[in-house]
Amino acid sequence: MNSEKNNNIYETLKDGTITSVPGFFAGSTSCGLKYSGKRDICIIYTPETSVCSGVFTINKFQAAPVVFDREKIHENCGVKAIVINSGIANACTGKTGMENTVKTAKIASDIMGIKEHEVLVSSTGVIGTQLPMEKIESGIKKSYAALDTEGGSSAAEAILTTDLIKKEIAVKINLGEGKEIIVGGISKGSGMIEPNMATMLAFIGTDAKISKYLLDKALKNANQVSFNSISVDGCQSTNDMVIVMANGNSGIDMDEETEDNYKKFTAGLTYLMKYLAKKIVMDGEGATKFIEIAVSGASDDLQAKTSALKIANSNLFKTAIFGQDLNWGRINAALGASGCEMDPDNIDIFLGGEKIVEGGIGIDIEKGKAKKLLSKKEIKIAINLKYGKGAWTVWTSDLSFDYIKINALYHN
Amino acid sequence: MNSEKNNNIYETLKDGTITSVPGFFAGSTSCGLKYSGKRDICIIYTPETSVCSGVFTINKFQAAPVVFDREKIHENCGVKAIVINSGIANACTGKTGMENTVKTAKIASDIMGIKEHEVLVSSTGVIGTQLPMEKIESGIKKSYAALDTEGGSSAAEAILTTDLIKKEIAVKINLGEGKEIIVGGISKGSGMIEPNMATMLAFIGTDAKISKYLLDKALKNANQVSFNSISVDGCQSTNDMVIVMANGNSGIDMDEETEDNYKKFTAGLTYLMKYLAKKIVMDGEGATKFIEIAVSGASDDLQAKTSALKIANSNLFKTAIFGQDLNWGRINAALGASGCEMDPDNIDIFLGGEKIVEGGIGIDIEKGKAKKLLSKKEIKIAINLKYGKGAWTVWTSDLSFDYIKINALYHN
Repeated sequence: MNSEKNNNIYETLKDGTITSVPGFFAGSTSCGLKYSGKRDICIIYTPETSVCSGVFTINKFQAAPVVFDREKIHENCGVKAIVINSGIANACTGKTGMENTVKTAKIASDIMGIKEHEVLVSSTGVIGTQLPMEKIESGIKKSYAALDTEGGSSAAEAILTTDLIKKEIAVKINLGEGKEIIVGGISKGSGMIEPNMATMLAFIGTDAKISKYLLDKALKNANQVSFNSISVDGCQSTNDMVIVMANGNSGIDMDEETEDNYKKFTAGLTYLMKYLAKKIVMDGEGATKFIEIAVSGASDDLQAKTSALKIANSNLFKTAIFGQDLNWGRINAALGASGCEMDPDNIDIFLGGEKIVEGGIGIDIEKGKAKKLLSKKEIKIAINLKYGKGAWTVWTSDLSFDYIKINALYHN
Repeated sequence: MNSEKNNNIYETLKDGTITSVPGFFAGSTSCGLKYSGKRDICIIYTPETSVCSGVFTINKFQAAPVVFDREKIHENCGVKAIVINSGIANACTGKTGMENTVKTAKIASDIMGIKEHEVLVSSTGVIGTQLPMEKIESGIKKSYAALDTEGGSSAAEAILTTDLIKKEIAVKINLGEGKEIIVGGISKGSGMIEPNMATMLAFIGTDAKISKYLLDKALKNANQVSFNSISVDGCQSTNDMVIVMANGNSGIDMDEETEDNYKKFTAGLTYLMKYLAKKIVMDGEGATKFIEIAVSGASDDLQAKTSALKIANSNLFKTAIFGQDLNWGRINAALGASGCEMDPDNIDIFLGGEKIVEGGIGIDIEKGKAKKLLSKKEIKIAINLKYGKGAWTVWTSDLSFDYIKINALYHN
C-alpha cells in the first residue's frame, strides 16, 4: 500500500488519528457490551457546531442509528458529538431499537450539556439484540469524563468488532502560502464487507471551513473510489456509515468547488478514505492476502467496477489466491459472468505486472515465477478489456479457512 | 428430498439411469485425462436420429463444445451420440480448442460409422488446457467398444470431476391406457454452481416422440425451476449444458402442448431435472448441509428468485448454517441487500416450519429447539415477504472448511 503521488498537496502525519485534527476530542471505555471486556463505547466531540455529511448503507434493513443519523444530517441541524458502541448493532430491533437510539442521544446531550439534536449515534456488532441502556449510560458517562485530544487512538479501538487491527490516519493538506488544514479519521470493518456500503463505520474530522453542499459532494465522490470499491465477502451490512464533521477551526474556507482549496481538500480526503478502506480489506476476516483488481478498457467506468467486483466476490478466485494457485481461468469465468460488454478473445490479464493471459488465453509462464508472484502478501491483478475507456480499481481479500472459522462460530 | 406429489403420473425406477430408456446405450473408459486413473470419457448413443434440445451457460467465456453444440442443436440436424470427457474443460483454449472439439466429433463419427453432424461433444474439468487428442481418440474407441444398455451408471461416473457421488435417475411416465414413456438422465457438478447455469452437465434421454418445438419448451421450463434454481458458490461456469435427446422409440407422440401427454411428459422431466439438480447441491464442494430457501409473498416470481438466491449466495448465511448458528440477522441482511421490494417490518422467516422472525425481528425460541433444527442435514428456510404473490424455491449448500480446501488446492 504505497503512498500515492500527491505533488506535495498532502502528507500523512505520524501516529495520526481523528484527534490529530484541531478541536477534536475523543473518550472511550468498556461498558460491558463485549464479552472480552475490551473497549466498546466512545464519544467523538468537537465543541464547535460542525457541518456534517454522511453516507449510509442502502440495505433495506437499516439499523436504528442509520435511520436516526441520516435524518439529522439531512436536516443539517449542526453536530457536536457522535456516540459509538460496538458489540451490539441495534439492527432488526424494531420500535424498541429506535427508542434506544433516541435515548442514547438524549443521555449524551444531558451529560455533555449540549443539545439533543447535536448528537449522532452509531452501533456495530450482533444483529437482533437490544442495547442494555444502563450499560450504555454508564459508558457515556465514563467516555465523557475521558474526553481528550489524545483519545483518538483508543476510540479507534473501541469501535472494533472482529477486527484485528486499529484503523486510523491523519493527513495534513497544504493549501499554499503557509495555510494548512488537517483531516483525520478512524474506521472499523473486517467482514460483511461489500460496497453500498461495506460493513463498516468511519468517522472523519477536519478543521476545514466548508459548506454542507461541498462537503456532501466531496464525501460522495471520495466514497465511490474508497469504501464503495472494497469487498471482503460480498455481504452488505445493515449498519454502515461514513460520517465527516468539519468544525471550521482552521478558519480556512474551501470556497467554491472549482477553487484550488476545495480540490486539494478533496484529494486529501480521498487519500485518507482510500487508506482506511484498504486497511479494512487488509484486516478482512481470515485474510492472508491483500488483492488489488484494476480493470481498464471497459465500455464505461461502471462496467469496469462491476466486472472488477464480480472477480473480487468470486469464491473460486478468492480460494485460488489463498491457495497461491495461478488459476487464471477463474478470472475469465468471473469476468464472463459479470454481464459486462467484452470480447472474450481480446482480453489481457496481468499478475504483478506479468502478463498471464493474452487474447483470453493463458500464457505459459515459468512455474517458479508464478509461485514467486503468488507468494506475495499483496497481489495485483490488472485486466485490460480493450473495449472502451472505462476503468476502475477495487480491493479485496482472499477466502481462507479462518473466514469460515470466524463466521461459523460467531455467536459461540 | 422427498418425492413430490405426482398423482401417479410418474414413478422413479429402481437403479434408473440414462440407459434405462429404451434404445439408449452408453460406454465409458479411462483414457488418461485424470491423474487418478478414474473413468474420464464416455459415449451416449442411440441408433435412432433424435430430436435434441439444449440449454447452455450464458457466461461470455464459452468453452468450445458449448459453442459447437449450441450451433448443431439450433440447426436441428439430428443427433445420435454425445462424447463427453472429464478432467479437461477445453475452455479458454482459443482456435486450437475449437479445432479439437470438431476433431473429437469427426473421430467419433468415423469410429461409430455415423455422420459427423450427428455427434455432440461435451467437456468439463480444468480451464485453459488443450485436449490431448491421441488420448481422446483411444478413449472414444474403447468407449464405443463398451457401448451397452447397462452402461449408463459407468457413464455417470465418467463425467464427474470433484463430485463425490454419481447422479442418475430414470422416471417412468404413465400416460394412461397402459401407455408409458421413460425419461432417464445423468448429471455432474459440485462447485462453480450458479444459475444461468450451474457449473454442471446433464444428459437426458427419453423414448418419447416429440417435436423440437415442444422439447425446447419443456426443457426451458423445467430448467428454470431445477438447474437454474440451485447455487453452491455463486460462480458461473464456462461449460454448462443440459442436453435432452428424444429418440421416439416408444412411438407415443407428445402431441400439442395443451394435450395431456405433453403435460405429463413435462411433469416427469421437471421432476427428473429437479432430482438431478438437488443431487448436485447435496454433493456441493465441502457441503455438510442441504438447504432449501423458499420465498413467498414477493412482488413477482423473479423478485422471489432474486432474493432467495441472494441469501443462497451469502457467505455469511452459508457459514452460519455450517456452524449451526441461528443467525437470522444474516438472512435479513441478505434479503435487504437483494434490491427486491419489501417492507422490512413485515417479514416472517421460518426454520423447519418454526417461526424465527416475525415482523422483521427475531423471536426468542428455546435454545434446545433451535439446536435441534440446525443440527439436521436438511435445512428448510421459508420466508414470507407479505408483499405480493411471487414465489420461488432455490437449493444451496453451506460453506465449510472443505470448500476452501478443495478450491485452494485444485491444481495441486
